[in-house]
Amino acid sequence: METIFTERHALRNAKTELYGGQLVEPFERPSRAEYIINRVREVGLGPVTEPEDFGLDPILAVHDQTFIDFLKVAWTDWQAAGFQGEAMPTVWPARRMSAHIPNHIEGRLGYYALACETSISEGTWEAAYASAQVALTGAKRILDGANAAFSLCRPPGHHAAIDMYGGYCFVNNAAVAAQSFLDHGSSRVAILDVDFHHGNGTQDIFDARDDVLFISIHGDPMDAFPHFLGHADETGHGAGEGYNFNYPLPPNTDFTTWRAALSKALHQIRSYAPDQLIVSLGVDTFETDPISFFKLKSEDFTTYGADIAALNLPTLFVMEGGYDIAEIGVNAVNVLQGFEGPP
Amino acid sequence: METIFTERHALRNAKTELYGGQLVEPFERPSRAEYIINRVREVGLGPVTEPEDFGLDPILAVHDQTFIDFLKVAWTDWQAAGFQGEAMPTVWPARRMSAHIPNHIEGRLGYYALACETSISEGTWEAAYASAQVALTGAKRILDGANAAFSLCRPPGHHAAIDMYGGYCFVNNAAVAAQSFLDHGSSRVAILDVDFHHGNGTQDIFDARDDVLFISIHGDPMDAFPHFLGHADETGHGAGEGYNFNYPLPPNTDFTTWRAALSKALHQIRSYAPDQLIVSLGVDTFETDPISFFKLKSEDFTTYGADIAALNLPTLFVMEGGYDIAEIGVNAVNVLQGFEGPP
Ligand SMILES: [Zn+2]
Ligand SMILES: [Zn+2]
Repeated sequence: METIFTERHALRNAKTELYGGQLVEPFERPSRAEYIINRVREVGLGPVTEPEDFGLDPILAVHDQTFIDFLKVAWTDWQAAGFQGEAMPTVWPARRMSAHIPNHIEGRLGYYALACETSISEGTWEAAYASAQVALTGAKRILDGANAAFSLCRPPGHHAAIDMYGGYCFVNNAAVAAQSFLDHGSSRVAILDVDFHHGNGTQDIFDARDDVLFISIHGDPMDAFPHFLGHADETGHGAGEGYNFNYPLPPNTDFTTWRAALSKALHQIRSYAPDQLIVSLGVDTFETDPISFFKLKSEDFTTYGADIAALNLPTLFVMEGGYDIAEIGVNAVNVLQGFEGPP
Repeated sequence: METIFTERHALRNAKTELYGGQLVEPFERPSRAEYIINRVREVGLGPVTEPEDFGLDPILAVHDQTFIDFLKVAWTDWQAAGFQGEAMPTVWPARRMSAHIPNHIEGRLGYYALACETSISEGTWEAAYASAQVALTGAKRILDGANAAFSLCRPPGHHAAIDMYGGYCFVNNAAVAAQSFLDHGSSRVAILDVDFHHGNGTQDIFDARDDVLFISIHGDPMDAFPHFLGHADETGHGAGEGYNFNYPLPPNTDFTTWRAALSKALHQIRSYAPDQLIVSLGVDTFETDPISFFKLKSEDFTTYGADIAALNLPTLFVMEGGYDIAEIGVNAVNVLQGFEGPP
């Protein structure tokens, strides 16, 4: 399997995350991608190639133009306002408040954020743009005939909504790739999100559409980030009704329970008969992940990779979360090796 | 003029505020109240008395029960979750997200917050409760026949909405006092908010009601906190249509411009003919306030105190903001002395 990767991910190198009322080193840090690419090379998964540049249009096909314009200038506007730390919102349009977009960068940050743990730092936009190109290049490989590809995206994307960032995500790489499939002739695309956290951004983008099936298996939002999306009763709206499925699972869920949800999801994907499958691949389901509460073991990732392969669909893996960094390479590549099967 | 004050305000003594991407000592700190009470005593404004205790009912008359229940347990629940800093939300119900209230304290914080600069710390609820009693005791003095009273509330209240805290505010003291007037026989109450920041919480609480006229003169939310309420076109809803008026003013507004807005507000209050007037007294309109952008000078506070007195209404002053701490006592008491006129 080919891996698409660029060192430009390291342009996203924030110093601060708001966690537990303190500013800490971000859980989402450059070493995550380095552990994964090292493991890819160590096991000889396949060629590692640089992304092509498809420009802004495929990003704007799923995101709001003013949101992307904001991401481009957020860091420089923040610095110009004289603030000393990294850019974080402090106030947002809460219940019964106005939808006017403020002038001041403090107000614009709140308008375009759904979470404030994620600072915007120098290079964030450039890395997010490059990460989307990594996803698009993987999609192109599939369109060109590959059975599978691994887009080693960083920063991740699945929390990024139509017009909001948060949860370490700025551009929704999986959604950008799905739209690219459709714009190149596909009729239907399925996105399976196996990250520990609900893929609220992906759900938001395709909520009213029937040409993308979105299924997420994740920590129950009553107990886990993003807290305000990912319930089982969210099944899509309008034309999208019946094309969104959530499998929220409780604290300490083990692989047996998790795999039973996966089995249902795979059945739904098979029934949908998509032209391509995108896997939002987060490995923060791992038992020692520092910010999650599932109990998967390393060998479980291999097992479910094989489960996904049984669908026999052209499959694009898009990297999302995983914060037990020393094990992230093994766990992510286990999924890919499980998918490919024994040599 | 009698001042109502309690040392219990000092139970609110948070160590951290999120400002400019850094955790800093809160601008809203105990010394604010100490500077004010010292000035009250220095000029011999009148007696200083302790608040009575009116219980929770007057608070629940304007706030959501589950919100108040949350405020009571937020700090202990946060500690029980094992977090190390003070309690701050990191994610909230943003656009197109669910209104389910999460179980986890991290999610509940986001549900009940409209801003994240304000940490919840040990003693916060106790101080907020005492601050509301200070407002209620001032209201009682007016009901008992006083022409004016000064409720030296801390923490402040005008950003606290029906079911949300933020902007250093937890319980809306002015709203609690207004409702108390109504519940003791008043037909109409006017609230004039002269704090630099829009009184979004007070507007929220009385938005659909015609028995409370709310008028706020403040920094334009396009440029100033709370950013998402306080526009001139917000004039109330339903029965409250025409009973809410906002005067947003631009950066560097001087007293001449500010006083012209006050003159319009006073005319509206006179036409409304309320039984009582409540002044949400913030002095962060001062020219050297560190987080605001108006240019009032100390003598201007005396002048507008006299302007308000010309209404000839029973008037309750409720302390709100002001962050040039060394000058806060002089400026706040100047308003009160201006109101009382020459001895
Ligand atoms: Zn995740
Ligand atoms: Zn203020």
